[in-house]
Amino acid sequence: MKPLILISNDDGYEAKGLQSLVKVAKEFGEVVVVVPDGPRSACSHAITMSIPLRIRKYRTDDDGTVYYRSNGMPSDCVKLGLKVVLKNRKVDLVLTGINHGLNTSVSVLYSGTMGAAMEGSVENVKAIGFSLADYSPNADFSTAEVIARKIIKKTLATPFPPQTALNVNIPQCPLKEIKGIRITRQALGYWNEVLEEHQDPYGGTYYWLTGWLENPDTGEDTCEWAVHHQYVSVQPVQHDLTAHEHIPTFKFLEE
Amino acid sequence: MKPLILISNDDGYEAKGLQSLVKVAKEFGEVVVVVPDGPRSACSHAITMSIPLRIRKYRTDDDGTVYYRSNGMPSDCVKLGLKVVLKNRKVDLVLTGINHGLNTSVSVLYSGTMGAAMEGSVENVKAIGFSLADYSPNADFSTAEVIARKIIKKTLATPFPPQTALNVNIPQCPLKEIKGIRITRQALGYWNEVLEEHQDPYGGTYYWLTGWLENPDTGEDTCEWAVHHQYVSVQPVQHDLTAHEHIPTFKFLEE
Repeated sequence: MKPLILISNDDGYEAKGLQSLVKVAKEFGEVVVVVPDGPRSACSHAITMSIPLRIRKYRTDDDGTVYYRSNGMPSDCVKLGLKVVLKNRKVDLVLTGINHGLNTSVSVLYSGTMGAAMEGSVENVKAIGFSLADYSPNADFSTAEVIARKIIKKTLATPFPPQTALNVNIPQCPLKEIKGIRITRQALGYWNEVLEEHQDPYGGTYYWLTGWLENPDTGEDTCEWAVHHQYVSVQPVQHDLTAHEHIPTFKFLEE
Repeated sequence: MKPLILISNDDGYEAKGLQSLVKVAKEFGEVVVVVPDGPRSACSHAITMSIPLRIRKYRTDDDGTVYYRSNGMPSDCVKLGLKVVLKNRKVDLVLTGINHGLNTSVSVLYSGTMGAAMEGSVENVKAIGFSLADYSPNADFSTAEVIARKIIKKTLATPFPPQTALNVNIPQCPLKEIKGIRITRQALGYWNEVLEEHQDPYGGTYYWLTGWLENPDTGEDTCEWAVHHQYVSVQPVQHDLTAHEHIPTFKFLEE
């Protein structure tokens, strides 16, 4: 039987990166798309509990691939896909992206792409989030498609450890300049935020959250090192957030 | 010099649990409050990049404690607090909560309370998120206040390891029934979601996301075990999501 693949993203149903991922995924199985009805960048694992969720089919391809969009967050879309659209059919793979922009280092925390992918691993489905080092709405996804194809093919054939998803970050360059794939750890960086102050026409002050990623972590085994040296970074991520090594550190609180 | 304490939450500026946390924190230092202008439950680490952020002082206590509210998410509030309100003054502690409801097991992923606390640890500030096992808006926070006081006092005097925050979950019971504090790991549970189908008056279908936490993880060292056995659970959490032990597992992708 053909693998069943659920696709979501955080850039919304009109994103070019979504079309690339669907195109590649169709080569491997039956594809169902459930995505937000607009951009949801940086929404992390947010889920929707205060307003009702809507979901609507917006497209059917000649090959039968169906596309749904929802007013929810990427994580909601994965839940809607698994429970409402696919009615608990066994899904073989959750794919998210291809995100317009990297999700390296601490960005994995904020990323809706990775929030949705990890929603797959929470539901015990093999899951991969793909991100390309290009924020442009018209980004060229040709290299990313080749990489995604290679990774999907290999992972479909291999069991994942439980509670684990993959965070794939792809450099933006011609395919022949890609040096390979590296399994990486998260670079211990942080966003150096700027809250840019602006005035509205009525005298009110507002702020735009912006900034840049600072990465003091110079390890050559990190996601950041990989993508800046023309390697594809594949970071295994988990949703057990426990700092296990520091459990003894805090034993003083038990007294 | 008195410690400088930044407080946020995800239940919004009117939450009763916020008042409890502020009351306790004032015993230890200078307190500044920056919270969302309404409930933001389950918003995780979401940050706001698509709309401008607003922030407004809404209250000043006789002792000089200032309160701000923002249209942003809890993580935005922490960033606004550190950068805009406190203008990069050295903050000693970020506290979030006290949340109306537990953030045990996989709920830590979705929790805005913990998103905001981890924002503190990303900014290299000692951070603690507090949650009470009572979802009621009028919950009794008297036990939680005593526990928070004890934990804040002890942690102010002790350095935290880098990249680490604490997820504190407090049972709802009289203080004398609390058996103690346990340093715990995250129970490997998941939400068994139900997407409850409803009809609007116009014939449209919508869904409410609901469900219950399933916890097949019976370990007596978990957050879930602790709170269901009248212990306060203190889980050290980290924002390095790498599944380090599984880096070798995925080396096959490098070939």
